[in-house]
Amino acid sequence: MGNVTIKLLAERLNVSTATISKALCDSHEISEQTKQKVLELARELNYIPNAYASSLRRNRSQTIAVLIPEVADSFFSLALNGIEEVALQRGYHTLIYMTHEKLEREKAILKELSGGRVDGVIMSVTAETDSFEHIHNFSRQLPVVFFDRVCPDLNTAKITTNDFECGYLATKHLIEAGCRKIVLLAVSNSLSIMSERSMGFNKAIKDFDLNENDCRIVYCGEDAVYNYQLIKELMQGTNRPDGILATVEKLTTEIYLACNHLSINIPRQVKVVCFSNQASAVILNPSLTTITQPAFEMGKTAATALLKALKNNSLVLAEESMVIPSALNIRSSTSVAVQTY
Amino acid sequence: MGNVTIKLLAERLNVSTATISKALCDSHEISEQTKQKVLELARELNYIPNAYASSLRRNRSQTIAVLIPEVADSFFSLALNGIEEVALQRGYHTLIYMTHEKLEREKAILKELSGGRVDGVIMSVTAETDSFEHIHNFSRQLPVVFFDRVCPDLNTAKITTNDFECGYLATKHLIEAGCRKIVLLAVSNSLSIMSERSMGFNKAIKDFDLNENDCRIVYCGEDAVYNYQLIKELMQGTNRPDGILATVEKLTTEIYLACNHLSINIPRQVKVVCFSNQASAVILNPSLTTITQPAFEMGKTAATALLKALKNNSLVLAEESMVIPSALNIRSSTSVAVQTY
Repeated sequence: MGNVTIKLLAERLNVSTATISKALCDSHEISEQTKQKVLELARELNYIPNAYASSLRRNRSQTIAVLIPEVADSFFSLALNGIEEVALQRGYHTLIYMTHEKLEREKAILKELSGGRVDGVIMSVTAETDSFEHIHNFSRQLPVVFFDRVCPDLNTAKITTNDFECGYLATKHLIEAGCRKIVLLAVSNSLSIMSERSMGFNKAIKDFDLNENDCRIVYCGEDAVYNYQLIKELMQGTNRPDGILATVEKLTTEIYLACNHLSINIPRQVKVVCFSNQASAVILNPSLTTITQPAFEMGKTAATALLKALKNNSLVLAEESMVIPSALNIRSSTSVAVQTY
Repeated sequence: MGNVTIKLLAERLNVSTATISKALCDSHEISEQTKQKVLELARELNYIPNAYASSLRRNRSQTIAVLIPEVADSFFSLALNGIEEVALQRGYHTLIYMTHEKLEREKAILKELSGGRVDGVIMSVTAETDSFEHIHNFSRQLPVVFFDRVCPDLNTAKITTNDFECGYLATKHLIEAGCRKIVLLAVSNSLSIMSERSMGFNKAIKDFDLNENDCRIVYCGEDAVYNYQLIKELMQGTNRPDGILATVEKLTTEIYLACNHLSINIPRQVKVVCFSNQASAVILNPSLTTITQPAFEMGKTAATALLKALKNNSLVLAEESMVIPSALNIRSSTSVAVQTY
């Protein structure tokens, strides 16, 4: 490695190193014939460009960064899949950073990335992110595209799904299945997606004249054991809900385990809808009604928007924003007739 | 950005740019007092080092690459979590590449990475990888650590789990639960983990004197629809299995759906064990007996081995290899008494 340099190629072909360099970058200044010769020799000698030297020359790293809360979640892993697919096709590399829902970690990562390691960032903010100055500052240096969890007042591309409608639709579905005391399980009160889903929930409660004291929003935490206890207490309380709308996938296990432990039958005694992309939703006991988000598509669209901006050497335009609708998949966890899978 | 340079810092402090550069790298050639002054001024002026210039100076990218088949799989997403955690702690960045089980993609990625973009690689080979020359060549340039799916004859650190014992243990468990016609569902006949699991399976069949014609290995594909059909045909055949050992997590959904479609009761008519890290295993219908792999721990250990080698500027030593045991978690899908969750 490293023995075959641009200089060697130049000597062999009796041209300048600049010519070789431009030919390798597919510059319009170089004739097709010369490009062909250079590429053939480069292949023959197994020339490998030094990534860092290339980056310095082009002032581009050909690398994008993805900041997500976690990867052990079907939504984010599918979205990452979509991002990486587009990036790889266009010759970009993808750095992955997990914030684990910590604002401090998000800030530290963006600070580190200011050093020029990447050409742009695709991100979904943490559940703690209630101020956006660090993102504002960063976006003055490098293009940022948001997906799913956005920074509302930053003027850039935001790839989202119809969270308000889905919050409404899921709640309406629970009401039509007979639920009168519905609880929305949330994980943050600062996230854009959570407030959208909550507003949809509240509107449905109002539209269908449900008692607003019986329907409420309960905030869960990051810890599975804590959430399990919380849900158990909720289901043992005096005003037990007969419908649950969970806004994050990972709450499914805790809801099912708590109900199982308390011998509360799903769907007879409580009906459950969850925002989830888990393939296993169909084989749960009972199978789970879900709001399925277009995770892979959202990842692809976010990457496409960012790479378009990089190609044009422009900012990421807010006009690239897109809302890709989710789907309500009705299964046994909300059925009216008692059913066993 | 970019206005505050090493040159500016040097002028302000009336020292050479080399001094500034060495001070920022914490070189022993520079006094503590000078380092202090440089760091204070750098902080004050909000100096951000150019990542690429730093890389060239140090000939290090502070970046590692992770090659995995896919990320939408609990094992790999948890392992990636472990890798990223260690990397971030030590100031390393993590590039993620998905091979989607394609050997060609694995080759192309490694070729691209030869350019010096990363300091080392952590990888789990594809289901198609039946020759290892590309990895051998790559490992002469840069350190490679394997986890889970290894390249057997490459002399480097391999972080694995006890696949042979688990294949044996899971099969023994099925036999003790009464199964006599057991099928192992595999996805590749070249993967090291698959042959280990198969050997464990075969040994158990032999040790317990089961009819070897009734017990066999069936190879599944990449496509969910294809696998669903395959499993359905298997369960409709004349010699229907009464036990299934699935070697990859994603087959769970197809097994459950096929049995449900054919009204074959799990565990009464067929018992199922799956290699799986899915949190939802406990809430499936019926809850699933699993071989749970130490995914997060394997990722952490692999990253630790690689970063140790990078720190010492040495090869990754085969002595860093580690076998971290998996656990058999017995649940309703293999119960003898008929149970409904």
